Amino acid sequence: MQVTARVRIEGPDDLAEHYTPGVAEQAKRVAEDPSVLARETVQANSVAIVSDGSALLGLGDQGPAAALPVMEGKAALLKRFADVDAWPICPVSREPDDLVRTVKDLATSFGAINLEDIAAPRCFTVERRLQDELDVPVFHDDQHGTAVAVLAALRNALKLTGREPADTSVVISGAGAAGSSVARLLLGADFRAERVVVCDSGGVLHEGRDLTAEKRWLAEHTNRGGAAQGSLQDALCNADVFIGVSAGGLLDGADIARMADRAIVFGLANPDPEVDPEAAAEHAEIVATGRSDLPNQINNVLVFPGMFRGLLDSGAARVTTRMLLSAAQALADTVGDDFDREHIVPSVFAEGLVPALAEGVAAAAKDY
Amino acid sequence: MQVTARVRIEGPDDLAEHYTPGVAEQAKRVAEDPSVLARETVQANSVAIVSDGSALLGLGDQGPAAALPVMEGKAALLKRFADVDAWPICPVSREPDDLVRTVKDLATSFGAINLEDIAAPRCFTVERRLQDELDVPVFHDDQHGTAVAVLAALRNALKLTGREPADTSVVISGAGAAGSSVARLLLGADFRAERVVVCDSGGVLHEGRDLTAEKRWLAEHTNRGGAAQGSLQDALCNADVFIGVSAGGLLDGADIARMADRAIVFGLANPDPEVDPEAAAEHAEIVATGRSDLPNQINNVLVFPGMFRGLLDSGAARVTTRMLLSAAQALADTVGDDFDREHIVPSVFAEGLVPALAEGVAAAAKDY
Repeated sequence: MQVTARVRIEGPDDLAEHYTPGVAEQAKRVAEDPSVLARETVQANSVAIVSDGSALLGLGDQGPAAALPVMEGKAALLKRFADVDAWPICPVSREPDDLVRTVKDLATSFGAINLEDIAAPRCFTVERRLQDELDVPVFHDDQHGTAVAVLAALRNALKLTGREPADTSVVISGAGAAGSSVARLLLGADFRAERVVVCDSGGVLHEGRDLTAEKRWLAEHTNRGGAAQGSLQDALCNADVFIGVSAGGLLDGADIARMADRAIVFGLANPDPEVDPEAAAEHAEIVATGRSDLPNQINNVLVFPGMFRGLLDSGAARVTTRMLLSAAQALADTVGDDFDREHIVPSVFAEGLVPALAEGVAAAAKDY
Repeated sequence: MQVTARVRIEGPDDLAEHYTPGVAEQAKRVAEDPSVLARETVQANSVAIVSDGSALLGLGDQGPAAALPVMEGKAALLKRFADVDAWPICPVSREPDDLVRTVKDLATSFGAINLEDIAAPRCFTVERRLQDELDVPVFHDDQHGTAVAVLAALRNALKLTGREPADTSVVISGAGAAGSSVARLLLGADFRAERVVVCDSGGVLHEGRDLTAEKRWLAEHTNRGGAAQGSLQDALCNADVFIGVSAGGLLDGADIARMADRAIVFGLANPDPEVDPEAAAEHAEIVATGRSDLPNQINNVLVFPGMFRGLLDSGAARVTTRMLLSAAQALADTVGDDFDREHIVPSVFAEGLVPALAEGVAAAAKDY
């Protein structure tokens, strides 16, 4: 990435305007009315992409240096797809208090904050505190970007298999940032707490287990009635939908065969899905992965460009569940004429995708 | 300013390279060898322009919000003149410990740090600690940019009036960031501690006064022998050079008349110089100001673009006095054919200015 000027400086007059004494006038106006920042400075169109590299891609804890090229790549996508000016910030700090402090301290330059690849459960604390303490939107992409993409794909998959959310049973594998956020968004989208089950590496989350705060919340708000117990494989029996946001190779074809007819299988672990896509396709009607070389790629890049475009355009002060639901609906609706079991989400390069999401987000921001 | 990509993302292959899985490979290489950052990421060519707005231009303490447009304007100049990618960071923090902590926490993304418009004496602590604790160069422009510009102009003014540094008496008005750094650099450039006098609003600094740590250092290292006492006006009697980095309207023509023959007067307070330039010109041979509408504009913008170009090109880990002296010499030498009493420094738009400074800095970095 590079930082370029939107203005030309060719002679003394330009210098007088954009250096001294011109900027002094602008500074005085900001001191009188801070909203000038959001109209006339980098703040208007910029996003800080913040990662400590503690849960980098599927690589685990790699630290802030290794995170920098990843966040820079993401900045390139935000510019390419949504004309958003993003700058990577990779703090050395690890404690939630320290991360929150650093991000708050540099927030003046940015119109929104994108948290990325920060390990659970720390990411929950950091996101919640920042959103409470800043007056710009804070979006943790691994949570909410994933949840919006999954919900959009799931809406279309349900349509193709003739299901309604309230009647659909869903098993989520993974109770970290992504799994937790997917579960929360499904509950906000008419899926029923009795029919959503979340599993971690120890099996089904239920109130009888000894769990961290975030997982305890999930145990209390999913799997209502505690009908499901045991392993991920146990939970999958007769389930309509599998959503994997965990690790590769957890399941085989036989596990998918025990699901309900016309099953929906999203194996989103990268690069190796939770179940081999070919084996899954023998028993499921719709199979999706996170991979670009297979049909139905469910990836955050479908979401975050339009999301941030909408957040910046609307001047929203925070990210709301209503915005996430609206973005998911907009994404689902953008599939268009190609819509079939191998095209439940549009291509990243689909025309109209970013504006549709941005409008969805901005409309939800207005209603708030 | 805007952030644009140096790469094109037009189809799935580009996405594979600059998003997943391409960035994972880059992240792994960084984890093995962090020097990859300085070659392949934004770190290679970028500068954080950091200001808390506590001493903004000549406006005093205006806070971080008002600082943002000023720092953004500076980023535009760095790009225009030196192709450096700069991003403004305006921390809310005020305590030196907090400022240091924040800058250290975000330093991974930047190849150099430019401190700007931070009030003295806090700026000295912040700069010293950051330079000690980071392995990228830290440059406080109000101190060192000013000092380099002043020394370059002074070298040329001495040449025109037939003086040598060691025989020249200098009175500096202002003992804040700029005055302190000018005094230090003159002492490093063969000016003699007996003949350099610094004044603040209480008059001449000498060891008999009750002073802050930075001013005490100046009292001990300038005005050796304590010959000068009393007011700024007293100190100016028979002085060869006046350097004002303080406040407008402190002196009148009669004060300049009491200086030595062929006096040199730099009144750099903005927008109103320490002495009216026309009144000064009646009694001094060379008059310079910080203003763009008068001859001999001495301004940091002559320095910081080439300075940062040289720092980034050389991969220097810190800013040294040798680099500052080398930059001042390069700047003085760039005046070229126009050299006369109304052209002791080149125009900001002079061709070759930035490369000459950058080469001077890089050469000094190599010698270090």
